[in-house]
Amino acid sequence: MASTYDQYREDVAGRANVTDTPELIRYYRELEELGTGALWTVANKIEPWEPASPSVPIIWRYNDLRDRVMRALELVTPEQAGRRVVYLANPARQDVVAAVGWLYSGLQVMAPGECASSHRHSASALRFIMEGEGAFTNVDGHKMTLGRNDFVLTPNGTWHEHGVAEGGTPCIWQDGLDIPLMNALDANFYEVHPDLNQAVTYPVDDSTATWAGAGLRPAGQDWSKRYSPLFKYEWEPTYEALQRYARVTDGSPYDGVHMDYMNPLTGGAVMSTIGASIQMLRPGERTRAHREVGNFVYQCAKGSGYSIINGQRFDWQERDIFVVPSWMFHEHCNASESEDACLFSFHDLPVMRALGLYRQEALAENGGHQPIAV
Amino acid sequence: MASTYDQYREDVAGRANVTDTPELIRYYRELEELGTGALWTVANKIEPWEPASPSVPIIWRYNDLRDRVMRALELVTPEQAGRRVVYLANPARQDVVAAVGWLYSGLQVMAPGECASSHRHSASALRFIMEGEGAFTNVDGHKMTLGRNDFVLTPNGTWHEHGVAEGGTPCIWQDGLDIPLMNALDANFYEVHPDLNQAVTYPVDDSTATWAGAGLRPAGQDWSKRYSPLFKYEWEPTYEALQRYARVTDGSPYDGVHMDYMNPLTGGAVMSTIGASIQMLRPGERTRAHREVGNFVYQCAKGSGYSIINGQRFDWQERDIFVVPSWMFHEHCNASESEDACLFSFHDLPVMRALGLYRQEALAENGGHQPIAV
Amino acid sequence: MASTYDQYREDVAGRANVTDTPELIRYYRELEELGTGALWTVANKIEPWEPASPSVPIIWRYNDLRDRVMRALELVTPEQAGRRVVYLANPARQDVVAAVGWLYSGLQVMAPGECASSHRHSASALRFIMEGEGAFTNVDGHKMTLGRNDFVLTPNGTWHEHGVAEGGTPCIWQDGLDIPLMNALDANFYEVHPDLNQAVTYPVDDSTATWAGAGLRPAGQDWSKRYSPLFKYEWEPTYEALQRYARVTDGSPYDGVHMDYMNPLTGGAVMSTIGASIQMLRPGERTRAHREVGNFVYQCAKGSGYSIINGQRFDWQERDIFVVPSWMFHEHCNASESEDACLFSFHDLPVMRALGLYRQEALAENGGHQPIAV
Amino acid sequence: MASTYDQYREDVAGRANVTDTPELIRYYRELEELGTGALWTVANKIEPWEPASPSVPIIWRYNDLRDRVMRALELVTPEQAGRRVVYLANPARQDVVAAVGWLYSGLQVMAPGECASSHRHSASALRFIMEGEGAFTNVDGHKMTLGRNDFVLTPNGTWHEHGVAEGGTPCIWQDGLDIPLMNALDANFYEVHPDLNQAVTYPVDDSTATWAGAGLRPAGQDWSKRYSPLFKYEWEPTYEALQRYARVTDGSPYDGVHMDYMNPLTGGAVMSTIGASIQMLRPGERTRAHREVGNFVYQCAKGSGYSIINGQRFDWQERDIFVVPSWMFHEHCNASESEDACLFSFHDLPVMRALGLYRQEALAENGGHQPIAV
Ligand SMILES: [Fe+2]
Ligand SMILES: [Fe+2]
Ligand SMILES: [Fe+2]
Ligand SMILES: [Fe+2]
Ligand SMILES: [Fe+2]
Ligand SMILES: [Fe+2]
Ligand SMILES: [Fe+2]
Ligand SMILES: [Fe+2]
Repeated sequence: MASTYDQYREDVAGRANVTDTPELIRYYRELEELGTGALWTVANKIEPWEPASPSVPIIWRYNDLRDRVMRALELVTPEQAGRRVVYLANPARQDVVAAVGWLYSGLQVMAPGECASSHRHSASALRFIMEGEGAFTNVDGHKMTLGRNDFVLTPNGTWHEHGVAEGGTPCIWQDGLDIPLMNALDANFYEVHPDLNQAVTYPVDDSTATWAGAGLRPAGQDWSKRYSPLFKYEWEPTYEALQRYARVTDGSPYDGVHMDYMNPLTGGAVMSTIGASIQMLRPGERTRAHREVGNFVYQCAKGSGYSIINGQRFDWQERDIFVVPSWMFHEHCNASESEDACLFSFHDLPVMRALGLYRQEALAENGGHQPIAV
Repeated sequence: MASTYDQYREDVAGRANVTDTPELIRYYRELEELGTGALWTVANKIEPWEPASPSVPIIWRYNDLRDRVMRALELVTPEQAGRRVVYLANPARQDVVAAVGWLYSGLQVMAPGECASSHRHSASALRFIMEGEGAFTNVDGHKMTLGRNDFVLTPNGTWHEHGVAEGGTPCIWQDGLDIPLMNALDANFYEVHPDLNQAVTYPVDDSTATWAGAGLRPAGQDWSKRYSPLFKYEWEPTYEALQRYARVTDGSPYDGVHMDYMNPLTGGAVMSTIGASIQMLRPGERTRAHREVGNFVYQCAKGSGYSIINGQRFDWQERDIFVVPSWMFHEHCNASESEDACLFSFHDLPVMRALGLYRQEALAENGGHQPIAV
Repeated sequence: MASTYDQYREDVAGRANVTDTPELIRYYRELEELGTGALWTVANKIEPWEPASPSVPIIWRYNDLRDRVMRALELVTPEQAGRRVVYLANPARQDVVAAVGWLYSGLQVMAPGECASSHRHSASALRFIMEGEGAFTNVDGHKMTLGRNDFVLTPNGTWHEHGVAEGGTPCIWQDGLDIPLMNALDANFYEVHPDLNQAVTYPVDDSTATWAGAGLRPAGQDWSKRYSPLFKYEWEPTYEALQRYARVTDGSPYDGVHMDYMNPLTGGAVMSTIGASIQMLRPGERTRAHREVGNFVYQCAKGSGYSIINGQRFDWQERDIFVVPSWMFHEHCNASESEDACLFSFHDLPVMRALGLYRQEALAENGGHQPIAV
Repeated sequence: MASTYDQYREDVAGRANVTDTPELIRYYRELEELGTGALWTVANKIEPWEPASPSVPIIWRYNDLRDRVMRALELVTPEQAGRRVVYLANPARQDVVAAVGWLYSGLQVMAPGECASSHRHSASALRFIMEGEGAFTNVDGHKMTLGRNDFVLTPNGTWHEHGVAEGGTPCIWQDGLDIPLMNALDANFYEVHPDLNQAVTYPVDDSTATWAGAGLRPAGQDWSKRYSPLFKYEWEPTYEALQRYARVTDGSPYDGVHMDYMNPLTGGAVMSTIGASIQMLRPGERTRAHREVGNFVYQCAKGSGYSIINGQRFDWQERDIFVVPSWMFHEHCNASESEDACLFSFHDLPVMRALGLYRQEALAENGGHQPIAV
């Protein structure tokens, strides 16, 4: 039982501003006994003027992580561990195992010749390949070979398993999922495949061969799923698309040459609850700050630079991972004057958009640049 | 720093099953220092076999609440309190001030001649009128007069204010909002109206006069908002619709004569994040149990009976409020052999549907009826 | 073979303006032999500055038609005729049996105890009941009883049959169909029901009982058809909706108190290719002229007045039928200073909208009123 | 006035079968005088059992046309002619200047240094480049350079002008439009650009650079138009997409390796009223016959072979154009055992789909192959 109830008072017309009195405290305690409370004691707390994410901006550097991830190969077997993954925990979100907001991320490692058991779940998942040769994934019978910076989906409800070919090398990739959101929404289901492994029932890489024709789709093929039929977005055509687009655009003032991975049948996000984007900062490019309703997990796919998030500077280079929590100002800078820099990101914008919650705001002051906190 | 990491082990193929060893514990602590962790130590916890809502089923009886709600009239002024509301707190969701899941509910009271200050917010809101004469609400300039069992929307982003006419009586209504969800999603904005009060800019009750013509809509009127242009659903035509529908349907085995309040322009939910329904249990009707991904707040609008939720029986009569958490079995029974019983409910199904998460399941055993826990 | 090819010349920059020469005429004839032609000889004809409908405005007065329609009862049997219908032929559209544009209309008569054989077709159909007691229709097993000014759908692809109850009186209704459009699009299929008659498989009038609850829909009932699940729009609630709406609207300057019959699940037109509307002109109301891309068939459901269409005045009273061809100015006037007047109409706006072709334009001059041609 | 009214009789239950009598003929003539008629005299004609297109299958061979098209360069100036185009007239559709159904097609020629005046219209247009160097088109300020087999859109309502660069060669392309449909629907508007020519306001070929990234779209760019933002579909990536898709598909039994050009933001047709497709017949491939509700204009883009349409064989080679009318059986054969053959086509399927009219049917007999009429 609380001893004070008026800690959220605000002296603003239209806001709750009730001082505790002995009589009121008695009343509040009566209410508590009935499983209730007085709204005005918490109204200003639960109706903030603007979002105040509990997540903090943070970076995980690959230099620090790579060895630890590799060590998992020796420490546990895939049979014991299910998947050998080092997850990234936002200091304020450890209880829900989130990297930021309700988004989970981890680094998974597999050795050549290994293949994890097949399963499916309500959580939507994606992978961004960081290093190694021979990785593959099988999503509902569609086997895909995976190379560096390839981006691949394992949408919610699909049976999936991952592995590395016998002749390959240890592979590390970033996993992105919305496990925390599925739990928060009390909507998380999990199933192990009855056969533990699933068959490859389509020609290898058929998804890309079928659905990655720009401006072309197979005639007469219906697709009623809520996620993209294109499961793999290869790096080479992605990088080429950035280059081509860069020739005809000034880019976004906040994000440079910025493209969204999309479901080619809808123009929308690749999955219902997770979207993904790629952006290129041209040599020396420094963007202006804005903030968005949405949580972002970034990985540097190429080059180096820094981002200023909520007034804090984070320097990144290839393979580093950092997060931008909802409604925090962020701006990016390519530190090189000669090379471009590319940032891959995944985010919960599809959730925000589906629920009508997305908004963004540019930083007006100071030429659009945040003062850096010391 | 935890001392044990293997409490979630499951001895099932495809699930994590790693026993703590000194070497592993050292490894886990190293990971923690880097803001990371080993997925296999938490995988079974964060990937449950099915949803396990922290919310509990609970009932708030109007007999217990009414006096306390009325007392708020004496204890605080609208100027101090903003709104005089007693909120309903689910034991496991007090921290987020939710009645169930991420849904907020409270009982608001106003005296004749009072009018609360105007504001708007990201949260979507609804009201279900419980008692009193003369209540009104003004949503973006559309003033609506409110009677018993009327259901009214104040969609997210609309300026709104409520009041009771000079000649009225003290009025109590149930508020339903998704404040907790807006906070959870880091998407909650709040604004007080610059003039504190807003003008009535349309003929009184124009929303119903315009949009409640069954099968008819005003020609040439566009509406691009994501919520229903029909803001008020009056009780009389609602109850008549139930009666008419009852004549030609067997009803749902789980919910009796069950209708959703809808946006007449889309057939969809009344708002993006909150839906509402009304169901009639015919005299003596007892439904079978099912469970759904979704959280429900019920209010008995007419009659009396009981519901069995997760094996627990809750008896209700007019004005009582109870909740059904996600994925818990529930069944309803009208205790009267002569009168019908009506349950109003609001829920987060629009969220579940927008994100592709909705599913339901009937209870197969025992004729579809839950054993009641003692 | 034509003797002159330059009859469509226009002396306007950007338009074709080629004078016949012997050499050119030889060239044109060569082209003709190859199944081709020179675009510039017809370009100005096939690319007019604005639509020039071949249909003409016309009125059919019930006083003239009623006896002839009734005589069909004696002249032919339903078995011989299929349906006893007098169709309305626009002078310029007799070849395609259209009343205006690609819309067909006719007056059908049935005697008590008769029931026409069941069939289905690609054409969408509707009925507006003009007189008589005991009419019914059965659409895919949903039997509906029909009264004066009731509006009922028989959407494309549905099995349907019509009849009049034994105890009824001879009934006349207006049929509206898009038979001419289906033929024009080479998309018309027709089937006779294998049993010649179909069973009533739902409670009588279940469609209205289920789907005509304003702002309410049956929970858990899916509907994936492209037409409204509400098949019958009864006159009484329709007229009430007009009255209610009239209290809060100024109405359209062109159409008075104007409502569209809608699919309650989409807010859209009742069928894919035919829409329907109802409009009320208040006592003495005289609207201003506008023109629209779309063809309209009107029936006066109540009162009397006149419309000016393309500069021609047409006086109408209850049950008279008149048409407005695409892109012709039209305005309406209620001739009574004490009674309201109601016009039912059906039209091809859903086609125009589906193909992105709808536009409208108000008459700017002369206070929005057309000079009347003498 | 007709002398006989019973020529459409059918002796089938449910169909009209009324024999002329003197009394009936008197009645029919009375009806005619009132601008009406008896439905049963025409019902069987206007409600056929299945579509019977007036269009006929026909081929136009480039060998026959090319010289005539080129001669237009000498015979008329662009200023006089507007556009120098030889249109293709289906024998049964000459009155509406259609190649098939309501689709127009023509071969346009331009000399180096020429540029036609800018205009816009309700008709949707496309171009498929047949020969020549240096062609370009400017659509709403987006200039595009055009090469052989490139497919380019000029959607309805866009300002457009075409030309050939000074250093180019005479260029011929196929125009495809729905001018006849726009006229049939009384919806055709035409405007000449106020400046006769329009500026290039975007980087050359920006549409492709922006929107042709497979599975990628520019972030933050909205597009609310009803047509594809990708205006040009270049041949090289199109042919590559066919090759890639061919590696993982058996292809359609009716159409080989068959892809639709699509709006990358919707997965739908490139324009509201005209769609386009490309199909590859592998060496020796012979498809089976089916029929569809929809009209098709084909151009052979590569290789040679033949199609059997409604029992008639049409041999084609590169640049030949032929049509398939609605609901006529058609099958295709690649005559080469070593080379693939590619057919470009445009069609009115978007209209059929928008109105819910599309259906198809395979030929069941004779192994799916039509007997060839002699
Ligand atoms: Fe997984
Ligand atoms: Fe951003
Ligand atoms: Fe509020
Ligand atoms: Fe339920
Ligand atoms: Fe019919
Ligand atoms: Fe009009
Ligand atoms: Fe044009
Ligand atoms: Fe075909």
